[in-house]
Amino acid sequence: MAQSGDVIVIGAGFSGLEAARRLADRFEVTVIEARERVGGRALLHRFPNGDETDLGGQWVGPGQDRLQALIEALGAKTYPLWNEGDHLVAAGKRLKRYRGTIPALPVHVLLDLDRMLKRFETMAAGIDPDAPWKHEKALAWDRMSVAEFMNRTGFTARAKEMFRIGIGAVFCAEPHELSLLHALFYARAGGSLNRLLSVEGGAQQDRVHGGMGGIARAMADGLGERVRLGEPVRSVAWNHEGVRVRTEAGEYAARRAILALPPNQGLAIRFEPALPSTRDALWRRMPAGACIKCVAQYETAFWRDEGLSGQSVGGPGPVSVTFDNTEPGAKSGLLLGFVEGDAARDWSPADPDDRRRAVLKSFAAVFGDRALSPVAYAEQDWTAEEFTRGCYAAFMGPGVWTSLGPELRRPFGPIHVAGTETARSGYGYFEGALEAAERAASEVRIALGGRRQR
Amino acid sequence: MAQSGDVIVIGAGFSGLEAARRLADRFEVTVIEARERVGGRALLHRFPNGDETDLGGQWVGPGQDRLQALIEALGAKTYPLWNEGDHLVAAGKRLKRYRGTIPALPVHVLLDLDRMLKRFETMAAGIDPDAPWKHEKALAWDRMSVAEFMNRTGFTARAKEMFRIGIGAVFCAEPHELSLLHALFYARAGGSLNRLLSVEGGAQQDRVHGGMGGIARAMADGLGERVRLGEPVRSVAWNHEGVRVRTEAGEYAARRAILALPPNQGLAIRFEPALPSTRDALWRRMPAGACIKCVAQYETAFWRDEGLSGQSVGGPGPVSVTFDNTEPGAKSGLLLGFVEGDAARDWSPADPDDRRRAVLKSFAAVFGDRALSPVAYAEQDWTAEEFTRGCYAAFMGPGVWTSLGPELRRPFGPIHVAGTETARSGYGYFEGALEAAERAASEVRIALGGRRQR
Repeated sequence: MAQSGDVIVIGAGFSGLEAARRLADRFEVTVIEARERVGGRALLHRFPNGDETDLGGQWVGPGQDRLQALIEALGAKTYPLWNEGDHLVAAGKRLKRYRGTIPALPVHVLLDLDRMLKRFETMAAGIDPDAPWKHEKALAWDRMSVAEFMNRTGFTARAKEMFRIGIGAVFCAEPHELSLLHALFYARAGGSLNRLLSVEGGAQQDRVHGGMGGIARAMADGLGERVRLGEPVRSVAWNHEGVRVRTEAGEYAARRAILALPPNQGLAIRFEPALPSTRDALWRRMPAGACIKCVAQYETAFWRDEGLSGQSVGGPGPVSVTFDNTEPGAKSGLLLGFVEGDAARDWSPADPDDRRRAVLKSFAAVFGDRALSPVAYAEQDWTAEEFTRGCYAAFMGPGVWTSLGPELRRPFGPIHVAGTETARSGYGYFEGALEAAERAASEVRIALGGRRQR
Repeated sequence: MAQSGDVIVIGAGFSGLEAARRLADRFEVTVIEARERVGGRALLHRFPNGDETDLGGQWVGPGQDRLQALIEALGAKTYPLWNEGDHLVAAGKRLKRYRGTIPALPVHVLLDLDRMLKRFETMAAGIDPDAPWKHEKALAWDRMSVAEFMNRTGFTARAKEMFRIGIGAVFCAEPHELSLLHALFYARAGGSLNRLLSVEGGAQQDRVHGGMGGIARAMADGLGERVRLGEPVRSVAWNHEGVRVRTEAGEYAARRAILALPPNQGLAIRFEPALPSTRDALWRRMPAGACIKCVAQYETAFWRDEGLSGQSVGGPGPVSVTFDNTEPGAKSGLLLGFVEGDAARDWSPADPDDRRRAVLKSFAAVFGDRALSPVAYAEQDWTAEEFTRGCYAAFMGPGVWTSLGPELRRPFGPIHVAGTETARSGYGYFEGALEAAERAASEVRIALGGRRQR
């Protein structure tokens, strides 16, 4: 026998949990999660000494008002990412120190990069994040990749390389994979490319004590028994009366459903009737970026002694950017590195020990040999995680926004869609997950007449 | 209790059926098919008067040796596609008659188009279809879309438009969606772009009495009880001993499995252990082209009376190319039209009656008002078909071949892959389905020691 209720939310990431929180006051809500944990792309890791670190999304910054408010409402406290001292940029075989967002580069490279960034920002500022396909140049920009934009706009190989690293850091994808329109939309939805790339005043400004994984847990705690873990959804049958959701463990009926998943995860669910062709085509064209998040734990944040911030860019690889991930008051120093895009795909199938060695070698190339001997090491390969399959977010390649974009947020039958990939603000970030949840919950509330009927 | 055997083939299209045929002599083989029919992308339609037509793949041409041999072995007969009379090309609002593969166009456009095609053919000829990623320019060509190639190579808008129509006819996809390397590989794997575009001497030269759908049925008949219909596969659990396949109706165990599916259909199956990250990433980056195949039945092939071949290109849309699909000896005349790429995506969600009207209007714009009143009409929207989700074949966008291509045909554990998308010769065609089946069956035969062990 199916358990009955008003609303079934599929997915207990930030978006699913927030949608449920917003509906639980008036409706019978069940949240079904495939994994044995909540949080989706938020994941807390505990080192043997008790220190914790986020192996998923971890930052909160200015403009992310919903996320700020949520953190506050749950009684959590933020702290700034360590941003003191000099950053390092690889310049050939040498390392150069710099401060701020843009690395130390020869003047003609800086000017070229500045021109590329300004051009990009101006174009992005004109995009309506509600409907990027409506821009008068949408077709032209959508049929072009970011690589094509770079080749047309940039003069110097080094400026293009820095731009590529910036794109990699934001999307975990290669410029030739991304529709220019998607990249412009993404920047606009997050404020600006500069904001997405920045620490102070940007998307990497602050972190939260207890981690984003802790925030997800707190959200789930508030929902109590409503959250069901370890139940991958097999099928969703629907008509205009409601939905019937079959999982590997049971069956649920409800009047409405909210899909709070990375879009292409919906392809693992059998819908009856079959998914509309445009929705299916869209999901099949939204792969996610590739990222392996690597955190090495040291007795102290030893790089600080040399006046270094722990931030670096463009090292010899496979790690392409690093941050000091130490939590104030923690017993150890943490160095965070991202392996992104093609590098993540190359290293994902490797032996974990080999990968660890390669990552630590990357760290050592930038911060010296002390980096080779951490106390502990943790990593999360998001492309290998069965129910995520990439991060930070699904993206669109050339042509997708203008041919299928209008499908992205549209409910079909009694099924509504949430998840950061359906956000108009903060797409790809937890902020977007919350914005999408707000919209989807409000759609459901309107559909159900605003009051509980059972 | 699970039924046990040597080999489970998932998918009863040309590739799965051929793989089973090649193994059935020595091994216990079961073919599991999700649909209630065999044939995959081959599908026979019967009109009320008994005439039949293929609503899936239908052609066989020179160089497709495996397909020719199969047709012969099953005792079927081929006949040439109707290719007499003049073809029509839309030139602005006028229609111009022409013969051969290249339409009548102003000389400067013809020269420009010829240059683009020659350039493309020369590049394609250098690709090793076994490993396109190994070409010395593979990275550059893979990071570029076909649209970028067109914009760099072509001078005139009309030559580029004709090239676009050619690409649309071959891939059912837009040039900006396709990696240039993929398009070059595809042309090479099918002989040359010219061969893929041609009727006489090309991939559209011949058809088969009884249809390709009939060939699939004959293959299945030979396999008898081994073929199980209407069983979508839910999960495939494997270790190095073998596989356990769970469908919506039962459970099967075997020593080896062959996946003979469009690659992205594998995303609907839960693998235990979870799919290797690179395989998953590859499948998520292989959407298929979009195509609606439309056939109108008339009392006679009336266009022939006016000296027309029934072939046309570049009409006002949504149909972009037409053919005379009449079978010699049939009681009626059939006109075939393809709605492709973005047009297919636009028209897929439309009301079927509206779509039929639009298609017939397309036909009438080229062949006159008699086309508005067919005796019957049949269509197949392959993007809406739950277990296919597009045609003619899955393709790769920019960057995929060089970052994930080596995964394409590699077995994982006891699981081998077939399907036309894993072919080195005839990729995207039934010929490729057979070539892939040959390879996968031979892998299995070697793995199982060449003889039946139970």
